[in-house]
Amino acid sequence: MKEVTVGELKSASLCQLKELCETLREEIFRTVSVRGGHLASNLGAVELTVALHRAFDFPRDKLIFDVGHQCYAHKLLSGRAGAFSTLRCRGGLSGFPKRKESSYDCYETGHAGTAISAALGIAKARDLNHEDFSVVALVGDGSFNNGLVYEALNSLKILSTRVLIVLNDNGMSISPTVGGTHEVLTELKEGEAPVQDVALFERYGLAYMGVYNGNDLTELLPALERAKEVLKTQSVLLHVTTRKGQGYAFCEQSPELTHGVSPAGNGGAEYSAALGEELTAMAERDKRVVAVTAAMTDALGLRPFFEKFPERAFDVGICEEHACVLSAALAEEGMRPYYAIYSTFLQRAYDEIIHDVCGQGLPVTFCIDRAGVTGADGETHQGVFDLSYLSPIPGLTVAVPKNIAEFRAMLRKSISYDKPLAIRYPREGRGGACGDVEFGKFEVLHSTMSNIVIYAAGERCISLAFRVLAAAMERHIDFTIVNARFVKPVDAEMLLSRKEKYVITLEDNVLTGGLGDAVGRVLRNTDRNLHSFGYPDAFLPHGTTRELAAEFGLNEQDILHYIEDCHARG
Amino acid sequence: MKEVTVGELKSASLCQLKELCETLREEIFRTVSVRGGHLASNLGAVELTVALHRAFDFPRDKLIFDVGHQCYAHKLLSGRAGAFSTLRCRGGLSGFPKRKESSYDCYETGHAGTAISAALGIAKARDLNHEDFSVVALVGDGSFNNGLVYEALNSLKILSTRVLIVLNDNGMSISPTVGGTHEVLTELKEGEAPVQDVALFERYGLAYMGVYNGNDLTELLPALERAKEVLKTQSVLLHVTTRKGQGYAFCEQSPELTHGVSPAGNGGAEYSAALGEELTAMAERDKRVVAVTAAMTDALGLRPFFEKFPERAFDVGICEEHACVLSAALAEEGMRPYYAIYSTFLQRAYDEIIHDVCGQGLPVTFCIDRAGVTGADGETHQGVFDLSYLSPIPGLTVAVPKNIAEFRAMLRKSISYDKPLAIRYPREGRGGACGDVEFGKFEVLHSTMSNIVIYAAGERCISLAFRVLAAAMERHIDFTIVNARFVKPVDAEMLLSRKEKYVITLEDNVLTGGLGDAVGRVLRNTDRNLHSFGYPDAFLPHGTTRELAAEFGLNEQDILHYIEDCHARG
Repeated sequence: MKEVTVGELKSASLCQLKELCETLREEIFRTVSVRGGHLASNLGAVELTVALHRAFDFPRDKLIFDVGHQCYAHKLLSGRAGAFSTLRCRGGLSGFPKRKESSYDCYETGHAGTAISAALGIAKARDLNHEDFSVVALVGDGSFNNGLVYEALNSLKILSTRVLIVLNDNGMSISPTVGGTHEVLTELKEGEAPVQDVALFERYGLAYMGVYNGNDLTELLPALERAKEVLKTQSVLLHVTTRKGQGYAFCEQSPELTHGVSPAGNGGAEYSAALGEELTAMAERDKRVVAVTAAMTDALGLRPFFEKFPERAFDVGICEEHACVLSAALAEEGMRPYYAIYSTFLQRAYDEIIHDVCGQGLPVTFCIDRAGVTGADGETHQGVFDLSYLSPIPGLTVAVPKNIAEFRAMLRKSISYDKPLAIRYPREGRGGACGDVEFGKFEVLHSTMSNIVIYAAGERCISLAFRVLAAAMERHIDFTIVNARFVKPVDAEMLLSRKEKYVITLEDNVLTGGLGDAVGRVLRNTDRNLHSFGYPDAFLPHGTTRELAAEFGLNEQDILHYIEDCHARG
Repeated sequence: MKEVTVGELKSASLCQLKELCETLREEIFRTVSVRGGHLASNLGAVELTVALHRAFDFPRDKLIFDVGHQCYAHKLLSGRAGAFSTLRCRGGLSGFPKRKESSYDCYETGHAGTAISAALGIAKARDLNHEDFSVVALVGDGSFNNGLVYEALNSLKILSTRVLIVLNDNGMSISPTVGGTHEVLTELKEGEAPVQDVALFERYGLAYMGVYNGNDLTELLPALERAKEVLKTQSVLLHVTTRKGQGYAFCEQSPELTHGVSPAGNGGAEYSAALGEELTAMAERDKRVVAVTAAMTDALGLRPFFEKFPERAFDVGICEEHACVLSAALAEEGMRPYYAIYSTFLQRAYDEIIHDVCGQGLPVTFCIDRAGVTGADGETHQGVFDLSYLSPIPGLTVAVPKNIAEFRAMLRKSISYDKPLAIRYPREGRGGACGDVEFGKFEVLHSTMSNIVIYAAGERCISLAFRVLAAAMERHIDFTIVNARFVKPVDAEMLLSRKEKYVITLEDNVLTGGLGDAVGRVLRNTDRNLHSFGYPDAFLPHGTTRELAAEFGLNEQDILHYIEDCHARG
């Protein structure tokens, strides 16, 4: 679509605005169909975004997207229509707000619940600097389960500043929104219990206003004008109900399946499917098995478990910290909780992993999906820190399966492992096969008499090691490949007993604090020459996982050259 | 005091119970006066604890203390009166609930906001196991600002189980409680706005009950009986107002000063006082300087700043995550936020450090107090993970000053350092002196021609290095001491250019992921022999900081022996 200027948007007739919404919707649908991305959430927020751009004066006024799953129409309206076809491609537009992309993106997001805190900080700085502009936080109702939102609401009076919170309520986060707060919102829009529920928000210093057909510009535009007026003296919560997937029947009917869409052509088996199957089978044999998730039932593969054992399956909404403490307490009472979560979101529960799970030595198993580079979602979603932040935690075992078969074997063994356990894995992999898994022990996959050995953690790195081996063999170079399937503890016995002069580690993680450092600690003051491949001290942008790996540290050619060099040195 | 049996407690007259409360109060006051610990909070909760022990059947019923600042009377009533004089001493009773200490302590706490989540997990496991007991979470009003509490409340209906939440409202967390939720509680106990506010809690599925004189057993006992009755069918919020410091005029009048009490004889200058002075001076010169804290104004030394620049000082309550995002957003708008926090509590904001501050490269300075072993508070409060969890974060500089003068110099330099910065320091230290601080550069403190060098991070380790040096010199052994004042980045140039064969690192942190690993990464594949002293892969119990250091890894004799050995090997 062609760029829309501010002047065009401000002067457009209602009819033209409606046409614009359809154009935006088509552009989003077309692009996401090819590039993947967040579909249903973006389709639902088109009218709201157009109305916000009409009512406010961005980028002078500031718009902060919570999570950022709703920012596509905003990108299309802020000079990025021409580049929109590059969405989520390496070097192209990000799927999330990025400051370096546009001055219209004033604050970067990707994880849930940060927008109100950020809006408060921006508004407070504005006040201190005696500036005059409006600050708008656009927040989905799923985030309203997250504790950070309440911490921010609690600060409204403390900070005595003014922000507009637009609550885009589509009744869904990634999964349907659940819990007490959701009921308040539902009753508000159904007009059943306005007095008490409005009071809930007014208590925090917010004027409550509702637009209960948020895909209708004739309701939205005047409501935003009223909100702007009230905002001159007070913070406002504008509760807008929208329809996730609006305009596309399939998306409206199955928003949980069209929240995130993968680009065409993605294949491979999924670890998440194996998780669902294996946990369900384990739960059949052992009634202590329970599953916990923070609003990601489908993406993590837990649907079969939830269907078969609803009484032992807990989706607590986007509450990563609570889910962790809940798991700890369930374990304290003898249950076997499996807390499944994306690597990047587990960062939210860091204190609770230490304080509640490992501090008490409780047998919670963390099933950490989307570990390593995750690709098209970019900086805020890469799972490249978990090996580093988990390794220092006392008493935690950190496992990295070589394939889905080994992942299944680790899950089955975990039931009799009475300690905190983390298993981290990427989205896709191969089924493969595996022998016995002994906790804390590596496995030799390819044994040679060479003086070079690669310790590789996880399927991607092992696959990479074998690709390098194939290329090396053409050059008559061979080396040993070891499955470094435990990063904590590493297999010190094997590391010390093997005698290769050249030791190489491969990990789908930043180099600081991961496998390389763990191996380095063991091999200190020996005659081994250690070289580690992994990611540098940088936030990795969006691209395909293979592009990112090759560009930022796990490059087949670089590893091959290094091995050739070792071979030449002898 | 002598032990109180369950039979005695259950059969005591009201008069006898009141006497018991006085005895408990005296015992707590006497012990804390000698041993240090949490005074005002424990004094205020004596009647409530007695009433809970009278009404419930612990340990069959389960009592979870949020934070654990109120558990002393509970310890005295559960077979630990005889050992109470050992409170907070190495080998003695912990100041917090500990499962290994008593079956009456079913779940361990130390950080705020976990108790309701934990109660829910225990209650849900009870239901799944078809057991029958009551679960009680005792939560202070300060924790009701923490987001984790709302995440748990939101789960009440999802989990469809029953718990009793006893909200001990003394109007204070460590500092006075602030924010919107506090206003709800205040109005409830003042009887001003019951309808809407009760609805706030009922929305979550809680029956609201109030006891507005919670230091009076004649009100407490019948209220708990009523709560037990309602708990048979529904979760209950019992709102109990108590007086922090009850019974001791000084404590009642200055609860923020008597929340935590240090044992007699503690001395030394405090880094916190330097922080307050320096930030206040900086704020006078530069209007961008703002201070952020999560309910720890006094303990962090920020009181002078808050008094001089109230409009630029933000205490957001126990909301570590929100405080971090707020700081990021203030920085995004050009302010210079200094977010002061204890090392152990910063774990709560881990995702926000990555996602909001460092992901956007914003110049927030984290002033991390109580780093390293913190002593008498034990496992949940040791600040021994920060070097490890901060080092992997891209773009973050991690500084460890050698003394208070260097801390001040780092603070002054930080104002012109346009990147995320963390400065970590212990509670106490020496003023000392310092020269120029160049970011990322180490400093040689004692230079010799020896083939042994110690790289020490922070005041404690540098002091330890010099104590070892004094002892070594008596044996005619000398070595070089370097102030490793940046753990990220380490001074690779110095590490590689110095030629000592024996390299030793000292750090007040777990060995995994800290200074030793950072130095090891740089010195890989060189001929240096590297040995690191620090803490092992374990949760460290309570004791004095010197006891803990000596017992768990930073032992003067061990380091001396190692150096003698290096010297002998040549």
